[in-house]
Amino acid sequence: MDHKILRATRELVEEVGYQALTVDQVAARAGVGKAAIYRRYASKAEMAFAATAHGQWPPPLADTGSLHGDLLALVRTFHVPMAAPAARHLVPALISELAGNPELDARFQDTFLAAEQTGFAEIIERAVSRGDLPGPVDPATAHLLLLGPLATALYIHNVPVDDAMLADLATAAAAGITALADQRHSDHGRPR
Amino acid sequence: MDHKILRATRELVEEVGYQALTVDQVAARAGVGKAAIYRRYASKAEMAFAATAHGQWPPPLADTGSLHGDLLALVRTFHVPMAAPAARHLVPALISELAGNPELDARFQDTFLAAEQTGFAEIIERAVSRGDLPGPVDPATAHLLLLGPLATALYIHNVPVDDAMLADLATAAAAGITALADQRHSDHGRPR
Repeated sequence: MDHKILRATRELVEEVGYQALTVDQVAARAGVGKAAIYRRYASKAEMAFAATAHGQWPPPLADTGSLHGDLLALVRTFHVPMAAPAARHLVPALISELAGNPELDARFQDTFLAAEQTGFAEIIERAVSRGDLPGPVDPATAHLLLLGPLATALYIHNVPVDDAMLADLATAAAAGITALADQRHSDHGRPR
Repeated sequence: MDHKILRATRELVEEVGYQALTVDQVAARAGVGKAAIYRRYASKAEMAFAATAHGQWPPPLADTGSLHGDLLALVRTFHVPMAAPAARHLVPALISELAGNPELDARFQDTFLAAEQTGFAEIIERAVSRGDLPGPVDPATAHLLLLGPLATALYIHNVPVDDAMLADLATAAAAGITALADQRHSDHGRPR
């Protein structure tokens, strides 16, 4: 039933947009009762957010053998659901809702964002074990360095992002994360 | 009169939020007619956006003598209006409005965003002249690398950004821009 609700939500977001979306429409399209929806999701916003994540968030991450390779694989994998039409409609509206709804924002931070940051922590840990980095950096910062530019391009600047741009973001994030790790773990003190 | 309208808008956004803000309230607070406001701004969204920019956008940029120094000065300067209470209230609502309003989005891209990217083009040109970079990189990409993580932290993750984080963003952006310039202008071809 989860799958039917989330698929109906995605379809309707693409057809009518997030603002016009109602839980009634989703219930009708999915062939379920409204009560079934509200047992799973506290609000339209949560239902829609879960729907854009396609039921599995964050996507599984491969060990490619290098920090740059891991970041490139991650940004390509995240780009698919993030750039999908449903997400392009939905996320800007959710950004507005999160800013005005501290309870929803806390759930967002504790679930989706925390899970994404755990993925970055794993990538950084592998890079340190491998010797790609001299020591760890904050996973939340690494997350912002790679996915912040992507989210800003897609949802604030409203510009398309092609694979060449994804490759540039991975190259820049690998260099940025390496610079921060060098700065923190250098024996020669902090550069200016 | 511009100044009075923009100040009244900022005050009211902080007091009542962007959703509840009306042009009538701004007219009354500023002591001007609604017609005077609509001669200047096509919509509440444009008025509010101009107000958060504090009448001068982008802020003037100093030549600090290094790419890293220029990026650090820029991100510190931009952070002040971007993190102000009026902007924290307003920008998430504007993000939602831009996504659903192609005309407003085009104006945003042609004015504020283009002016910001011009600032990055100048910083990159200076870095190339100085020998900090082997050749130019796309200013729009450089803009995303430095300000994308900041905008994402402030407006999507809703987390505070302190000066240590601003310094990290400048360090990472300088390393990322340098890596992209090296890749594009290297005699040894593109790294994988």
